This record gives sequence, C-alpha cells and structure tokens, in this order.
Amino acid sequence: MKSLYDRILKDGRNLGGGILKVDAFLNHQVDPQLMDECGRELARRFEAVEATKILTAEISGIAPALATALHMGLPLLYARRTKPITMPAQVIMTTAPSHTRGQMVELMISPEFLSQDDRILIVDDFLATGQTILGLARLGQTAGAQIVGVGAVIEKVFEGGREALAPLEVPVQALATIVDMSEGRIVLK
Amino acid sequence: MKSLYDRILKDGRNLGGGILKVDAFLNHQVDPQLMDECGRELARRFEAVEATKILTAEISGIAPALATALHMGLPLLYARRTKPITMPAQVIMTTAPSHTRGQMVELMISPEFLSQDDRILIVDDFLATGQTILGLARLGQTAGAQIVGVGAVIEKVFEGGREALAPLEVPVQALATIVDMSEGRIVLK
Repeated sequence: MKSLYDRILKDGRNLGGGILKVDAFLNHQVDPQLMDECGRELARRFEAVEATKILTAEISGIAPALATALHMGLPLLYARRTKPITMPAQVIMTTAPSHTRGQMVELMISPEFLSQDDRILIVDDFLATGQTILGLARLGQTAGAQIVGVGAVIEKVFEGGREALAPLEVPVQALATIVDMSEGRIVLK
Repeated sequence: MKSLYDRILKDGRNLGGGILKVDAFLNHQVDPQLMDECGRELARRFEAVEATKILTAEISGIAPALATALHMGLPLLYARRTKPITMPAQVIMTTAPSHTRGQMVELMISPEFLSQDDRILIVDDFLATGQTILGLARLGQTAGAQIVGVGAVIEKVFEGGREALAPLEVPVQALATIVDMSEGRIVLK
C-alpha cells in the first residue's frame, strides 16, 4: 500500500532495538483517512475467508481493526488487558509478552461475544514476534471459534512472527513489510 | 439518535451503582456501523467549531473518536494511560478518577502532537462525572491549545458532568441522554 509505505518513510522513527515509532499516524496520533484505507485494503484481501467477527487487542489494534470491521460489515471485538467492572466474573484469558512494554500482559475477552459458530479474522497494528496475535488466537480457540486469517498494518519480518503463526494455517497479510531496521535504517520490501 | 437509543435499550445493561454496561456495541465488542453513524452525527453537530484535532482517552473513547475524526477529516490523538517506550521522556500528564476502575488513572500525551494553534474537539464514549473529559481538557490547555467542544456518545445526566464542564465554556453534545438508572431502570430522555 503505497500511501502507507510513504507515511512510514516520512513519519516513522527507528528508535533502535527493533522498535519502530509510528506515534504520528498509528499508535498515539491516528490518521483516520489512512486507517480507512488500511481497513478497505484488509477487507479486500480477506473477502474470501467468510469471517464473522474481527478480533484485536487494545489499545493500538483498535483503530485499524475498526476500519477493517467497518469495510467488512462485521462486529469488532477487542481483547482487554485489564478487567473493567462491566466484565463478567468468568472471562477467557491468556497472557502474552508485550514488545513495547517489556513485560507479560494479560489478554481477556468476555465469553458473551464469541461462539463456536464464529470465524475470526485477527487484525492488529503490528506483526512482530507474533506473540500478541497467537494470544488472540488462543482466546478465540478457547471460545470454540475458528481463526480464519491474520491481518497486520506493519510487519517486521526479521522478528519471525510469520513463522510463529504458521501453525495456525491461515492466510497472513501485512500492508507494509519492513525487512531491515539495523543501524538506524527503515527498509521496506 | 434513534439507532443509538434503540441499541441502548436492547443491549445496554444496568449493573447498578450508575454503571451502564454497553460491552455489546461500544466498550468491548464494537458495532462499526453504529460508530460510523455516531461519528457522522458528532461531525455534523460540531461542523462550526473549526476544530483542528480530535482528542480522546484510551481505550473506549477510541472507536467513536476515530469515527468522528474520519467524518471531520481531522487527526485523532488519544491520551495514553501508561507510557509506551515510543513516547518521549517529557510528556504532558494529568490524573483523573476512573469511574469504571475505581481508582485514579494517569492520562498523558506527547507534546509533539499538539500546538498553540490547535483547536481541540474532545470526544469520548461517556459523559458521566466529566472528570476524564476535564483531564483531557487540561492536557490540551497545558499544550497551549484551545478546547472548542465536547462530544460524548452517552451522557448520564444524574452524574453532573455537564455542570462540571461548564467552566470550559464550550458546546457540549451527547448523542444519547440517560436521565434515570435507579432501581434497575434505563430511562432515556
């Protein structure tokens, strides 16, 4: 997606250690037009998987996942990291290491909103190590639902997430692919 | 907004203590079409305020604020509650009591994304006590920006938020207004 590539090169910052700062348009400040375009493109790529629900993780997955959900006409479910008082006592929970927080985080969903009939498309901002996405997949599978695809806005291929997701045996799509961030570079495929 | 009123009456749950559970379409599962409609309506109501940026708080403000930002063609900035490693050392920070968490939470923004020229429209999911919105207003004002309006998806008038926001001297709009939640009721105006 050329507009996304251009934006990453213009406003993305390589903070070192494999951390790409995209706070100007994706993770703190959000460009709604760009998100809408990302959502339309992910919807197009996953048209055939017959998803019934989009699943993401709070916080920074919400914007691209909402745009995708809108273009696919599907509900969005976002896994919570802390339990609000509106959540029932019994939740489906897992843990995953957070790349940008340097610690394990909890991911939880209410069983009210997933069923055995659901076909889940996971959408997140980044595909890096794949651990958050695998956590989301576990949540969906625990609810008895089927994972049918994984879409990410930005993939960092050198962190091996695509290999980690291989056991899911679903199509994996990224709208921008970063192949090298060594020595301060941001190299897109 | 009739579709929103209907949805609150159909899927909203009064959990007691003034807590309205809207996890089915706004706070955990999100209905993108309904969000889009909310965003279009807030954009219409605030057309005249000449905003330059939408400001909300993570997490549940993001969906309605993104929809509003899309319809107004403006960037969205969401205040963070915890500091990701991509944020600079110097941030603009305040604290506000969280209604659904029963504790004080931090709200912070990076000074990179607000300037003295900005005219901020604050959008959040709920207007209850108004404390989160006042916290967002403090963040904006600390950056030297001007607050020009406050929009909420659901207002609970009996919690006094509108009075709390009066010192801001800006238009305050809510798309659904709940006037009574006593004895298990959900009474919309």
